[in-house]
Amino acid sequence: MISGSLKPTIARILQPQLSVLSRAMSVGATATRTDTTARLAELRTLMGSYNVDVYIVPSEDAHQSEYIAPVDGRREFISGFTGSAGCAIVTASKAALATDGRYFLQAETELDSNWELLKQGLPDVPTWQEWALREAEGGKNVGVDATLISADQAKSLTEKLASRKGGSLIGMDVNLIDLVWADKQPLRPKAPLQILGLEFAGKPFETKLADIRKDIEKYKGSGLIVSMLDEIAWLFNLRGDDIPFNPVFFSYAFITPTTATLYIDEDKVTEKVRAYLGDAVTIKPYNAIFEDVKVFGEISASAESKVLVTSSASWALSKSFDESKLTTLKTAPIEAAKAVKNETEIKGMRASHVRDGAAQIKYFAWLEKVLNSNVVLDEVDVADKLEEFRKEQKNFVGLSFPTISSTGSNGAIIHYQPEKKTCAVVEKSKVYLCDSGAQFLDGTTDSTRTMHYGTPTPAEKQSYTLVLKGHMAVARAVFPKGSSGFILDILARQYLWREGLDYRHGTGHGVGSFLNVHEGPIGIGTRMTYNEVPLDVGMFISNEPGYYEDGQYGIRIENVVQVVEKKTPFSFGDKKYYGFDTVTMVPMCQNLIEKSMLDEEEKTWLNEYHAEVYEKTKGFFENDPYTLAWLKRETALI
Amino acid sequence: MISGSLKPTIARILQPQLSVLSRAMSVGATATRTDTTARLAELRTLMGSYNVDVYIVPSEDAHQSEYIAPVDGRREFISGFTGSAGCAIVTASKAALATDGRYFLQAETELDSNWELLKQGLPDVPTWQEWALREAEGGKNVGVDATLISADQAKSLTEKLASRKGGSLIGMDVNLIDLVWADKQPLRPKAPLQILGLEFAGKPFETKLADIRKDIEKYKGSGLIVSMLDEIAWLFNLRGDDIPFNPVFFSYAFITPTTATLYIDEDKVTEKVRAYLGDAVTIKPYNAIFEDVKVFGEISASAESKVLVTSSASWALSKSFDESKLTTLKTAPIEAAKAVKNETEIKGMRASHVRDGAAQIKYFAWLEKVLNSNVVLDEVDVADKLEEFRKEQKNFVGLSFPTISSTGSNGAIIHYQPEKKTCAVVEKSKVYLCDSGAQFLDGTTDSTRTMHYGTPTPAEKQSYTLVLKGHMAVARAVFPKGSSGFILDILARQYLWREGLDYRHGTGHGVGSFLNVHEGPIGIGTRMTYNEVPLDVGMFISNEPGYYEDGQYGIRIENVVQVVEKKTPFSFGDKKYYGFDTVTMVPMCQNLIEKSMLDEEEKTWLNEYHAEVYEKTKGFFENDPYTLAWLKRETALI
Repeated sequence: MISGSLKPTIARILQPQLSVLSRAMSVGATATRTDTTARLAELRTLMGSYNVDVYIVPSEDAHQSEYIAPVDGRREFISGFTGSAGCAIVTASKAALATDGRYFLQAETELDSNWELLKQGLPDVPTWQEWALREAEGGKNVGVDATLISADQAKSLTEKLASRKGGSLIGMDVNLIDLVWADKQPLRPKAPLQILGLEFAGKPFETKLADIRKDIEKYKGSGLIVSMLDEIAWLFNLRGDDIPFNPVFFSYAFITPTTATLYIDEDKVTEKVRAYLGDAVTIKPYNAIFEDVKVFGEISASAESKVLVTSSASWALSKSFDESKLTTLKTAPIEAAKAVKNETEIKGMRASHVRDGAAQIKYFAWLEKVLNSNVVLDEVDVADKLEEFRKEQKNFVGLSFPTISSTGSNGAIIHYQPEKKTCAVVEKSKVYLCDSGAQFLDGTTDSTRTMHYGTPTPAEKQSYTLVLKGHMAVARAVFPKGSSGFILDILARQYLWREGLDYRHGTGHGVGSFLNVHEGPIGIGTRMTYNEVPLDVGMFISNEPGYYEDGQYGIRIENVVQVVEKKTPFSFGDKKYYGFDTVTMVPMCQNLIEKSMLDEEEKTWLNEYHAEVYEKTKGFFENDPYTLAWLKRETALI
Repeated sequence: MISGSLKPTIARILQPQLSVLSRAMSVGATATRTDTTARLAELRTLMGSYNVDVYIVPSEDAHQSEYIAPVDGRREFISGFTGSAGCAIVTASKAALATDGRYFLQAETELDSNWELLKQGLPDVPTWQEWALREAEGGKNVGVDATLISADQAKSLTEKLASRKGGSLIGMDVNLIDLVWADKQPLRPKAPLQILGLEFAGKPFETKLADIRKDIEKYKGSGLIVSMLDEIAWLFNLRGDDIPFNPVFFSYAFITPTTATLYIDEDKVTEKVRAYLGDAVTIKPYNAIFEDVKVFGEISASAESKVLVTSSASWALSKSFDESKLTTLKTAPIEAAKAVKNETEIKGMRASHVRDGAAQIKYFAWLEKVLNSNVVLDEVDVADKLEEFRKEQKNFVGLSFPTISSTGSNGAIIHYQPEKKTCAVVEKSKVYLCDSGAQFLDGTTDSTRTMHYGTPTPAEKQSYTLVLKGHMAVARAVFPKGSSGFILDILARQYLWREGLDYRHGTGHGVGSFLNVHEGPIGIGTRMTYNEVPLDVGMFISNEPGYYEDGQYGIRIENVVQVVEKKTPFSFGDKKYYGFDTVTMVPMCQNLIEKSMLDEEEKTWLNEYHAEVYEKTKGFFENDPYTLAWLKRETALI
């Protein structure tokens, strides 16, 4: 599944080319206009009471999560706009909603007349920051929930306000939207924590803590504030169920050389979990972190021994600190450690991808039968069937994101998610794109196959084959240790570019192990941060070039690959050379391949891949001759 | 010719991987040790008089030129070390010379016992900055000629000195080495300026001035200080002869919305040039710039209308400014304009490369005859012959850099330059690498061919073909407008990497038009600055992957290519798609090609290129049947 922004920030809507694709959302849904008049009136009354002239409502939660829980959908609540990216700003007389090109149409449909739409990226349209700065001129107060904005963003806005003779930015500890929403706001989830056994995690949390303490020492820290939810889940080998598709739980952690504190709604911490954490970890209420780090900073931190935060930490966490006592790390140590999977995780990731592949093979074989028998099924019906097949597999927990099941022109809507009421019937005569994945106890999967069960057009075959050639160029790449995913991006695009074609999303994102399907810090794409992190042995990343013909069809071919050392005949500069092992095990669509466009090396790769898919999955179909025959046909030599 | 650092700075020795290859220097020469005892004693006496405890001697001239004139070889004079990169630091009792891995052996041979060698990049070896900081502890004064260090470097050193409780950095307006060198220092060249006619320059200097004034307005400047010599030569359509191989002249320029001043030794400005510049340009003495910009800054600049400098400008030029009145531009506007050649320059670059190709074809054909007839010639003899053939061509001015003519293992010394006394005899049984170029009135050329006139080994053929495949992948690349040379680098290396091979230099550098053979800001390689500048139509860049087997042979295949718009079947996103036209016209070495390693598309490119080489150069050999026959054989279909 295509990554939007691994750490979405308010700033990302300024980079529409990078964030064209973010979390899947309901494009298929009938957009409805929400009347926001009463909500806005209430908000403005509150703004008056709190002495705020301009109020900013970001999209993100307090942990800069890519996916948010319904309780955190504040921007959606106040504006009525349901898209995944955007920022709302309200003044005494105006209200503006800024979003990017993906959402212009949707926002126009959903926003009522109280709202001005700021189409980010269009000429002469102010950024939301510029709009806010203009409204703040003459010394007005700009308010924002300090937990929902990063310290860097707050600093930048504060400086701009000062240079524009505006007022000041006020980091508030009350959220005015929550006050308006009141008892209509969904409840924060309360699911109990689950312990992830060592047979899946591979490393005791005590060892992880010890490793992180070495990092803290390396960075001359007195303590480390952890606010990213997947980092906390990974660190303690705990999982939760607070955000759909992401097995994480709302919490903060604060690690010092001698203490570890988990800040969490204590109702979620069962006796078993409490015993498991033992003396090594203190449990405190979720919000206690703010007072704790403030006191810690005053007493224990110094210019020589600072408190460490990562760039995703909120302004609320850092604003009580004296600047000399705080260091914002460029590299998040837990994120970096988490990206390199240990032996147990590698084994689990590979095994779960084989099981997931078996479920998909069963599904694509089933779909062929259904389409040939003229049963009428829509995009949601078939996605439900795929989920059913996944559920049959060992260690299945849930989906890792909403299945993108799209036929024909819906495939060209990159972040399409079918809805029962509005979705299309799957047709044999059209290209079918399915991007899906699951959470297993031993790994997270994510793959895309584009199929055609009838007679594809030459254009469809050409597009598919160009995408496949790019996919294989990445899969076959060999590169010296130290190389980043940034430099590999052109390999995926080169064949499309020769035809004047391209796709408006990245080529790959890191994948968690029974964690978020999108995780940092690595990626394959043109985002500069991808060039800052070398690909290392044991990392897992997606390889997913695509091509989208608006109004016609969408093509994407996605496998998860593992970074491995490659045995090369030489090792110039005494360097190791790395490459990928593909771990997703689902056949490519032979029906869509224009064989004359493949060279011998590409055919060899494809045949070897298909042989591996067959060998690893055939055992699942011992009692399913129909699927086995389908698999055999689809993995035949080309 | 491989680019080192386009703007060499003291800092570059900290990046040995980027600067492995810099200006050609005399590796072939017998290194001799210079007794520096007396020089150092004199310098230390002067340091005492000027109250300087630690004295820094950079390699660069006042214009951060890649090539320097002998008069500016101060670091070489004081240390005896003749390499192109390094920094000398002298205290009352110690002297240190810092250089990078290319020069460790040479420095050990050349430095006398007064000097400590700081091998930059080795573990536990301090950088020269660290060494200087250590020596400066306790409030000592660190002196440096303020014209030889950039403002950014000075700022960084000053801050480090402050944080380490060291003394302060003193930007001196007298150069202590010059005082020691005294009447033995070579004279600063006095060659008169030459006007480059419109038939070569394509655009009157008045128009260029008007364009630059638009940039000044865009950046809200009150004036622009120009200190790079090639920028000044380009701006005024003037050429000089102050630095070997580079048709530039020592000067500064200061451009305001209403005035243009050229600071130069007035002896170089002939009456003709004075008349040509007319009222549009005021001529003032070279050193008058310092007082002029100081006064200008005090009177005319303000926070709203600043003086603009580029990052290559020296500390001497900026240190009199109040920080609020100066802006250091990230993009040097003249460098950016110069990189995009106009129609006349494009025509000239293409035509001069054809003539240069004809000279090389004649040479490589001649060399075959010579080797077959067992005449004993060394690397310098044959390079002289090549120069002779180039001189026969129209508009020839001189070489664009010292010819790298290397046989066998010398080819693996990337910055090899043969010297008569020590160079090797060219042997038919060895790989011969020749990297050479010329200055023509209508263009600057630069190309490398690797030849074998006997029977190459399978390893030599494999290496050559891997390099050729990378070269062709760059030559054939198609990429959307806005792409940089940074992303293309992997195309050149991908085939070598699959074998675990690589080369330790960039893949391409910008090329001037009758100007410096290396010019910014574009390049193909892993240097981050290359990612900041998109390749634009009308730019010229080298395409020069290589492979070097130490002690055995060197392979490099270099063509200059022009960025052009490519007609693609589609234009996704309404974008233009760009690619390259190869303008160097010299056959590849068929004898070194392992044909079985080329695919059909590669063979097609090679055959089409060879057909073009033949068509464009055959006319030069109407009366030279031997060369014509050689050309025909070497450009035959494979």
